[in-house]
Amino acid sequence: MALIVQKFGGTSVGSIERIQKIAARCIDSQSKGNSLVVVVSAMAGETNRLIGLASELTDTPSPREMDVLVTTGEQVSIALLAIAIEAAGGRARSFIANQIGLRTDNLHGKARIQAIESDKMHEAIKEGEIVIVAGFQGVDEDGNITTLGRGGSDTSAVALAAALNADVCEIYTDVNGIYTTDPGMCPAARKIERIAFEEMLELASLGAKVLQVRSVEFAMKYNVPIHVRSSFSPESGSWVCAEEESMEEVVVRGVACDRNAAKITIQSVEDTPGIAAQIFEPLSEAGINVDVILQNVSFNDTTDLTFTVSSTDLALAENITRDVMAALGTTGITSDSAVAKVSVVGAGMRSHSGVAATAFRALAKAGINIQMISTSEIKISCVVHEDDAENAVRALHTEFGLDSEE
Amino acid sequence: MALIVQKFGGTSVGSIERIQKIAARCIDSQSKGNSLVVVVSAMAGETNRLIGLASELTDTPSPREMDVLVTTGEQVSIALLAIAIEAAGGRARSFIANQIGLRTDNLHGKARIQAIESDKMHEAIKEGEIVIVAGFQGVDEDGNITTLGRGGSDTSAVALAAALNADVCEIYTDVNGIYTTDPGMCPAARKIERIAFEEMLELASLGAKVLQVRSVEFAMKYNVPIHVRSSFSPESGSWVCAEEESMEEVVVRGVACDRNAAKITIQSVEDTPGIAAQIFEPLSEAGINVDVILQNVSFNDTTDLTFTVSSTDLALAENITRDVMAALGTTGITSDSAVAKVSVVGAGMRSHSGVAATAFRALAKAGINIQMISTSEIKISCVVHEDDAENAVRALHTEFGLDSEE
Repeated sequence: MALIVQKFGGTSVGSIERIQKIAARCIDSQSKGNSLVVVVSAMAGETNRLIGLASELTDTPSPREMDVLVTTGEQVSIALLAIAIEAAGGRARSFIANQIGLRTDNLHGKARIQAIESDKMHEAIKEGEIVIVAGFQGVDEDGNITTLGRGGSDTSAVALAAALNADVCEIYTDVNGIYTTDPGMCPAARKIERIAFEEMLELASLGAKVLQVRSVEFAMKYNVPIHVRSSFSPESGSWVCAEEESMEEVVVRGVACDRNAAKITIQSVEDTPGIAAQIFEPLSEAGINVDVILQNVSFNDTTDLTFTVSSTDLALAENITRDVMAALGTTGITSDSAVAKVSVVGAGMRSHSGVAATAFRALAKAGINIQMISTSEIKISCVVHEDDAENAVRALHTEFGLDSEE
Repeated sequence: MALIVQKFGGTSVGSIERIQKIAARCIDSQSKGNSLVVVVSAMAGETNRLIGLASELTDTPSPREMDVLVTTGEQVSIALLAIAIEAAGGRARSFIANQIGLRTDNLHGKARIQAIESDKMHEAIKEGEIVIVAGFQGVDEDGNITTLGRGGSDTSAVALAAALNADVCEIYTDVNGIYTTDPGMCPAARKIERIAFEEMLELASLGAKVLQVRSVEFAMKYNVPIHVRSSFSPESGSWVCAEEESMEEVVVRGVACDRNAAKITIQSVEDTPGIAAQIFEPLSEAGINVDVILQNVSFNDTTDLTFTVSSTDLALAENITRDVMAALGTTGITSDSAVAKVSVVGAGMRSHSGVAATAFRALAKAGINIQMISTSEIKISCVVHEDDAENAVRALHTEFGLDSEE
């Protein structure tokens, strides 16, 4: 008998009819001999409705009270799903965060899970009940209500699976799995059967939106296999799990594209020790995430420095950089938001050489100019012109043998 | 410096604009040197919206899950009010039931309050914050969410006032106090300045809807003065407090009318010991509340028995009675829902004789036939024909000197 944690997002519980379908699915899964813990999000639209009410009062509501407000959305969902399961002849018991001691730190709006008490859930399971848990929420050590940030229900589900020592954490979504790349950009994209935690982490960080990055970190830390699958179909989806030896046979698991990138270049920076810290510390203090950094070889004691930020941070980053550089007597700053970051990810890179060369050659063949390069153990990222992004994704997808056979 | 518990109902927090008004009122009250604990209900319509969602799933949802569902309404209200107070420059902290240990028994949907931990509220008050508490809800000893029944926010407020040893519990409503009778039936109705707990208890039980009966019981038990007043006006309302000597000068405090009454008569019941138990036990088991009971003097070893029930229970009560009597060989059962119960209430009756006689004479003068009579220490109830109800109320109101002078 398997213990399965299932997570259903806002679309899956977006109407009474859909809640009834999920209820039927839960009962069916239990009747096959499984023990079930089900994590649900707020009904689609509900969180935004609540945020809208608060925004009529102020643009800067207290994060503590916002968490009190928005967590009601998940509470409504768990009650309705429990009622639906009982109405369909099953047995269920719902829990909000404090009822299962889902303890977090006190960072309202982006809290991190610290502990979960599993007694009450095990007790309910033992009594034959389907356990329903409100996703996205927690309580801090003083009993204040916290939330885990957008998409936090994924993390709730994985954390519950870890605490309960579940066999698998199933994440139900509106697509039927994780793809080698965005099918919207590349029609030859293929569903991935198995992907290693590290690979998924890179892909999620690089813009693949199927799973929240932190849920993958959690799954990796506690070695919880995740099964990403469709709410609307019984077919198997994609498994995210610990790296297996056979995985290394595949050099590249997927291709990611981040169009939300922008580039800032500082010309003729004085090449003295500590200069990089002087530039990047103020950006970090402003909460701006600097991604790829490229510094040319020094020439005449000055150098060019280029880095990328999220395009939504561009204006702020440019202002900060201008202020810093003005103080240093440098004024040559340019920016460019017409860029995209295309990356190939694969754990197999560790044991295969020449992957970067192959990637660069593929882009060259496609006539695409590479502006910046950044690599990690299992990832190669290239910054290219925005207009080249789609072609770059397709070229890499084909080059590394990811195209589907259809 | 006074510690005041204020309760605002669903209409008072029914829109963002109204929540802003309540917020301003709270800040104003605090600025006058008061410490404030504010209890709020769900926004008007919200509880019914949630019940509606559940009713799309089943007619018999589990009471436990219904409590999980509907308590979200108050949670939304406390968050929005706290945000509104902060937006208006004040400071506030919201609490749901489990955060202040508002412990109840486990009777979902009609739970009774057993304990409240006041530490966190005192701490917030000490820090200059306005404390906002979700009304209507509690948690049982296993941490399950419970509710106190419709109108339960009044009880929450009074219980909090008792636990915090507050100076007064202010119940804000859409009328400006408690009236000598329903102004809709009797234009001469007058606002009551002070009324004793016992009197209010009788009036509330008899159909006056301003306060929930249990909130008055609680206030009486812990001697918490209640001030019923208007959300929309600053003027003083009605005080409900312990009986004072001066109160006895007024013989009748108010006149109540319950149109939701129905009468069942059993003719020629065998007059043997235990017969009443045989009739009323099955009714009690079915949850039917029997009110006035009248048994005629026995004649030929048989007697007539008449009793009243709520008209919503009439059909069920009649069926049960018919079954019981058929087993006893009696068939003469009649019912009448065209009746109303008119009552006069006053603690002064204890020290004044002849009050009943005065009441009967007033009804006789008005040409009203009394069908049944029931009395208690501070109350006289008469069952009359429905069509006579309004005249009866007016006649009694005038006879006992309650008419306003305008």
